[in-house]
Amino acid sequence: MYEGVVQDLIDELGRLPGVGPKSAQRIAFHLLQADPADVHRLAAILNEVKAKVKFCSVCFNVSEEETCRICRDPRREQSVLCVVEEYKDVVAIERTREFRGRYHVLGGAISPIDGIGPDQLRIRELVQRLNDPGITEVILATDPNLEGEATATYLTRQLSPLGLKVTRLASGLPVGGDLEYADEVTLGRAFAGRRSAE
Amino acid sequence: MYEGVVQDLIDELGRLPGVGPKSAQRIAFHLLQADPADVHRLAAILNEVKAKVKFCSVCFNVSEEETCRICRDPRREQSVLCVVEEYKDVVAIERTREFRGRYHVLGGAISPIDGIGPDQLRIRELVQRLNDPGITEVILATDPNLEGEATATYLTRQLSPLGLKVTRLASGLPVGGDLEYADEVTLGRAFAGRRSAE
Repeated sequence: MYEGVVQDLIDELGRLPGVGPKSAQRIAFHLLQADPADVHRLAAILNEVKAKVKFCSVCFNVSEEETCRICRDPRREQSVLCVVEEYKDVVAIERTREFRGRYHVLGGAISPIDGIGPDQLRIRELVQRLNDPGITEVILATDPNLEGEATATYLTRQLSPLGLKVTRLASGLPVGGDLEYADEVTLGRAFAGRRSAE
Repeated sequence: MYEGVVQDLIDELGRLPGVGPKSAQRIAFHLLQADPADVHRLAAILNEVKAKVKFCSVCFNVSEEETCRICRDPRREQSVLCVVEEYKDVVAIERTREFRGRYHVLGGAISPIDGIGPDQLRIRELVQRLNDPGITEVILATDPNLEGEATATYLTRQLSPLGLKVTRLASGLPVGGDLEYADEVTLGRAFAGRRSAE
């Protein structure tokens, strides 16, 4: 449609997640007219990210060093491991300031439709970490959807012979939400998981 | 929220038009896990675009050379000039294959709210081009919105002393649309511009 590098740019932008052909065009035209310094800075950061960002060799969290900030922190509890799907889940949990243990990032969830089975996730590495007798509890904090639940079920079965405490995050009504708008599964879980009023 | 270069990348992506904080995060995480070659290619194209893409010295269309493909083409009619707001309008009109003349890209439309007056557009350059006695018609193909109409009205006033034929694109019902869903302004224009049935 367009000429030369302009079309190349639109094509490359269109490969990004959530960027359709129209958005790719819009971003490309913006960049054509943008200050060259801004565009060069974006290019430099793209290269820098790939050069600098590694995955923690212990928990597979994103890190600029061999091990991540959390694994290096001696004040984090060594006895509890929280298993999540992705790096962004680590960030979300860190924001709550509720969890003081360490993480294990699986790199996704079991999803046969996408060709992701247990072997594509870092489950072998998790089991290996659990050889450490200092770890007494594993919290399975996968997403509360089909793939996340399947992954948690699979992990529960794999981990039960190890004699650890294996827990799941509570399901229930989201805080600040309206009961009448909760879906039936969530509401059902909220009933099943009800606790005594204080 | 995130650490180091990952946050830098999210910030830079968030500056792009139509990319909110959530999309910026999503794109950044995608890039973290993407093949380094793909990311380096995107970075290289960003730099290449700023190095290669210039604006045609005659019509201000996007071009990789001093003058654009259309201005260089001797088969294009020299007598008709089509005035558009942006490069993407040139592409849209080229797609119709209805126009065989040349273009003049204003670089936007008059919009006092955005601080864009006639001096910020390439109107002086347009008037200069019209000194060429070979040009007999100017088609004002600005957008059919407030800013585009204001720009066309301003240009009509500026160009009328030059003794040229100055025309506007027809307004009316979009082809393939439903009459009942046309807004009243469009429908009104379609009545005003009605032509005898063949």
